[in-house]
Amino acid sequence: MAIQEQIQQWHELAQQLRVDSIRATTIAGSGHPTSSMSPTDVMAVLLSKYLRYDFKNPDNPNNDRFILSKGHAAPLLYAMYKAAGVISDGELMSLRQLGSRLEGHPTPVLPWVDVATGSLGQGLPIGVGLALAGKYLDQLPYHVWVLLGDSETSEGSVWEAFDHASHYSLDNLIAIIDVNRLGQRGQTELGWNIQAYAARAKAFGWQAMEIDGHNFQEIDQCLNAALSVNDRPTVIIARTKKGKGVASLEDLGGWHGKALKPDAEKAAIAELGGQRHIIIQVNKPEEQPQPVVIGNPQQLQLPTYNKGAKVATRRAYGDALLALGSAQPNVVVLDAEVSNSTYAEDFAEAYPERYFEMYIAEQQMIAAAVGLQVRKYKPFASSFAAFLSRGYDFVRMAAVSRANIKLVGSHAGVSIGQDGPSQMALEDLAAFRAVWSSTVLYPSDANQTAKLVAQMSDRNGIVYLRTTRESTPVIYDSDEDFPIGGSKVIRSSDSDGAAIIAAGITLHEALKAYERLKNEGIAVRVIDAYSVKPIDAKTLHQAARDTEGNLVVVEDHWLEGGLGAAVLDVFAGTNSSPSYDETPLRLIKLAVSEMPGSGTPEELLHAAKIDADAIVEAVKSQVKHSLGVALHSKSARK
Amino acid sequence: MAIQEQIQQWHELAQQLRVDSIRATTIAGSGHPTSSMSPTDVMAVLLSKYLRYDFKNPDNPNNDRFILSKGHAAPLLYAMYKAAGVISDGELMSLRQLGSRLEGHPTPVLPWVDVATGSLGQGLPIGVGLALAGKYLDQLPYHVWVLLGDSETSEGSVWEAFDHASHYSLDNLIAIIDVNRLGQRGQTELGWNIQAYAARAKAFGWQAMEIDGHNFQEIDQCLNAALSVNDRPTVIIARTKKGKGVASLEDLGGWHGKALKPDAEKAAIAELGGQRHIIIQVNKPEEQPQPVVIGNPQQLQLPTYNKGAKVATRRAYGDALLALGSAQPNVVVLDAEVSNSTYAEDFAEAYPERYFEMYIAEQQMIAAAVGLQVRKYKPFASSFAAFLSRGYDFVRMAAVSRANIKLVGSHAGVSIGQDGPSQMALEDLAAFRAVWSSTVLYPSDANQTAKLVAQMSDRNGIVYLRTTRESTPVIYDSDEDFPIGGSKVIRSSDSDGAAIIAAGITLHEALKAYERLKNEGIAVRVIDAYSVKPIDAKTLHQAARDTEGNLVVVEDHWLEGGLGAAVLDVFAGTNSSPSYDETPLRLIKLAVSEMPGSGTPEELLHAAKIDADAIVEAVKSQVKHSLGVALHSKSARK
Repeated sequence: MAIQEQIQQWHELAQQLRVDSIRATTIAGSGHPTSSMSPTDVMAVLLSKYLRYDFKNPDNPNNDRFILSKGHAAPLLYAMYKAAGVISDGELMSLRQLGSRLEGHPTPVLPWVDVATGSLGQGLPIGVGLALAGKYLDQLPYHVWVLLGDSETSEGSVWEAFDHASHYSLDNLIAIIDVNRLGQRGQTELGWNIQAYAARAKAFGWQAMEIDGHNFQEIDQCLNAALSVNDRPTVIIARTKKGKGVASLEDLGGWHGKALKPDAEKAAIAELGGQRHIIIQVNKPEEQPQPVVIGNPQQLQLPTYNKGAKVATRRAYGDALLALGSAQPNVVVLDAEVSNSTYAEDFAEAYPERYFEMYIAEQQMIAAAVGLQVRKYKPFASSFAAFLSRGYDFVRMAAVSRANIKLVGSHAGVSIGQDGPSQMALEDLAAFRAVWSSTVLYPSDANQTAKLVAQMSDRNGIVYLRTTRESTPVIYDSDEDFPIGGSKVIRSSDSDGAAIIAAGITLHEALKAYERLKNEGIAVRVIDAYSVKPIDAKTLHQAARDTEGNLVVVEDHWLEGGLGAAVLDVFAGTNSSPSYDETPLRLIKLAVSEMPGSGTPEELLHAAKIDADAIVEAVKSQVKHSLGVALHSKSARK
Repeated sequence: MAIQEQIQQWHELAQQLRVDSIRATTIAGSGHPTSSMSPTDVMAVLLSKYLRYDFKNPDNPNNDRFILSKGHAAPLLYAMYKAAGVISDGELMSLRQLGSRLEGHPTPVLPWVDVATGSLGQGLPIGVGLALAGKYLDQLPYHVWVLLGDSETSEGSVWEAFDHASHYSLDNLIAIIDVNRLGQRGQTELGWNIQAYAARAKAFGWQAMEIDGHNFQEIDQCLNAALSVNDRPTVIIARTKKGKGVASLEDLGGWHGKALKPDAEKAAIAELGGQRHIIIQVNKPEEQPQPVVIGNPQQLQLPTYNKGAKVATRRAYGDALLALGSAQPNVVVLDAEVSNSTYAEDFAEAYPERYFEMYIAEQQMIAAAVGLQVRKYKPFASSFAAFLSRGYDFVRMAAVSRANIKLVGSHAGVSIGQDGPSQMALEDLAAFRAVWSSTVLYPSDANQTAKLVAQMSDRNGIVYLRTTRESTPVIYDSDEDFPIGGSKVIRSSDSDGAAIIAAGITLHEALKAYERLKNEGIAVRVIDAYSVKPIDAKTLHQAARDTEGNLVVVEDHWLEGGLGAAVLDVFAGTNSSPSYDETPLRLIKLAVSEMPGSGTPEELLHAAKIDADAIVEAVKSQVKHSLGVALHSKSARK
């Protein structure tokens, strides 16, 4: 085909994408037409010439991957799907309506969308995860394309991605920055200074190409050149105009996120040359060998520990992860430069080809996990629990992506001791419980940890494991089972005056309290709530019934949102399950309420009133109260 | 003084700092001596020649500010304090002990520490906030010095700071990167490639200087030169050796975060030339005029709204902020490129000199707020509530810093409608409740919002305000008061069968439900829990007593950790307040449990079962149950 003819075809396609972006948003009454109109020419060329994608089989391992990091340009993406012949015009017109797959920002409700976007600055770091999968695990020649907006380059996470992509020489990663100069409320920081973008990208080790994003010949040459860069990632910095093609919108402020009114829509469509009905054949990937399978699956042989030995649960995590690595070749491990503390290092040493050092970049770490699971790997990502809070928005969005990732936080709570509050996770249980699709686990011993790690691997959703810095006694036999959603009643009698509910480090305080109370003739139940979410409602209801509601929950966490909240929730109804347990509760939450400082673990547990002393005191206050009530009702009966 | 003599003095001081770092960590039995020994020579010169700091008066507005971003090098900082004569050797030896001011990582428990560090990558963005204060608000010539580790430059937040510092031409900001090549578990990404650091910094618009961090003459010249850069921020990239000065530690792996055993300590001290007892006179700042006062305080005239009008609470936030700006010249506003959505834009227009556009960089925004409050400004920082989750670790650390900042999140919950789940904050109440020192407010009408914004200004700690995208009816008179910690009983009778507890958007659903239930002869109480933390326990206890425990809590938030959890907490005891309310509860939490998509606000509230329909149904199930119980007990009595 002559180049001029080709350009004309691209132009027609691009105009169709613009028209469709306008039509879909006008009928929806909201959305982002102008942001969909700036990168359109680049997308027209990408879709019709360079992308290799089998729309009939989104799971084809040879498919290129495309991430619309500027998720608000969803109308453009959906218009591309229509042009590719996989959604109808009717469906396109359902944009933003209840029940439509075409949500305001893309989510994997659509089979061709790998990950949700719309929180800016996440597409590129997720793309790094996919590119790591392609280059090092699948070892297939597909490319990962990421379209970014210019405004989102203000997010540090974008520079974590620039950094890591060059560190890992991800020549299969091609980013396109749509420099349309206009953010939501005015000019961006760098405006049309595409040289500044290029200088930054180059300093971070990337190949950078600057183009006029509305010049098809430049676009074509540049995309072609990007495919042949073979030692580093490439970024194409495209100077574009927001609202391109419609004079009343083009490069004008005040049009961000605004749909056109029907009259303006009509005029704009006319200006763009009217509706078109182009359907293109997107190139399929060449057939390639199946992805490389790294290692042969072995029978899972979890580590075991002798009762009474002192082993930190973080240590058991490392051991179990190593075992899992042998049994499951699709387990991949990431860590944020603390693998010798989280004990991810043993896996790293044994399976270096499946370990990715993410340095101190927790956002990038979590994003990479999301990218890796797109290609069906099972990523375990670890850091100090406190520092996972750095990536909370990425966890939130991973849930919207329906991602299956495993996050492991060590060094939780005041029990870490001397390092002080900056290193203590005291809000992680609350934060992770409030994530859709999440599972929250908090083991108290090494054998339990190993069993939980094994279950994490196949668990869907966001699975969080909290481990403990300190060595704690092994209290379970290695052949016990610890199903997710269960709990263990480890002390009980027919005459329990109260039940102590604990998990992790505080379970050991509960056991000390049990002994002391027993010596004073007070029988208590001790429940190990290792599965914080889902929590074992049945066992907790039974405990409440058996103890006249005398529950003491003790946790190394702030008072809000953690284990205590999980226990309270069990006694409330919800919209999906409006029944509630009517056992009157006399529940005491023992948790951290004052800002801790440094000290020994024992000192800090005591100072926070979450140690055996505090538990004994709380139980006594309850039991005394119960006795008082009992005596009172006895005397009343007389 | 001859240069050689000067160098010898610096050398002696540096050796003392090294010896003291070793001594303090050995006696503590933990800590980071080697990380304290690499930037030591630079610090010796800074402390004795360039820093301008009045240790007797840390609040002196002319003081330079110094942030130890690599907080694990706390022993070095404390050794500097000893050398400056403000702590004794005895106190230095209390490092990391319970009750000592010298915590494992620095916190403002010490009067000379402005902000807590220890979560890496936060010092520089906080320094940007301080430098903004110095250059644009105080308009005083002090400098802000930030010492970073090399590993922490992997954090994207560091590049948000590089970006913003150059955007705002912060020539009063001087960063020093201690490139000792070794991270916690091995070599850093860039090793000793100080040219790479310099290239990145330059691409981000900084002056970059590369030096040998153990060459006093280079250090001296460089610090001197940094002071005279007057158009951009400066970064000094110092090539150093971890553990410098002790052969058995110097530039060796495996020594991160390890204290020396007493024998090794002894040998190391000997190698460093033994203990010294140098006390230096740190230069005080020159006397300067008082900080510029921007504007004259006016009487606060909050906006008022007519009952029945429809006004979004985000709109009222913008109006109230504008009023506050006039009344309080120390109110400063930040926004992350969405000021036309949060309505911070009105303040920006009226008081451009007190408004800082933070572009899409929520971590930097929150960090800048922390920096600004060090200088006693009252920062209000706003974005979509969902995106504040990006800065959760900064909020966590702001609490450790005992910072007073105000964060405002708009567009909360499914009620935002068409934009879909990526834009919906559904975990923000849980996340902010689980922050030490936090206050969490969620107004339902415009007059209430205005009153709460006024109170936020003087409230200590982390204050979070959640606003609503949709316009909602004004239900309160403009002269009503809404104290933090209170609530409003807006519907009640002597025969309430249940109490509906709501806040924000769902309060309006509760009012609709009230009318419908009333028409069916069911009286219910409606409580506006606008103060989610602290919550009004007294009113909730009374409601439980009056309704036989029939409480329905309804919130536009996930089931976990939000308003429902706050209400449940009221009925539990804690370690500081072990009493509990024994009213048997039949509490139903109506909250979001399925991942929403797009739709109209009404459709999504309905689909999530948090609208009037769901409330009516929940109340009926409770009341029916109560009646059943009542009938049952009546018939039993017969």
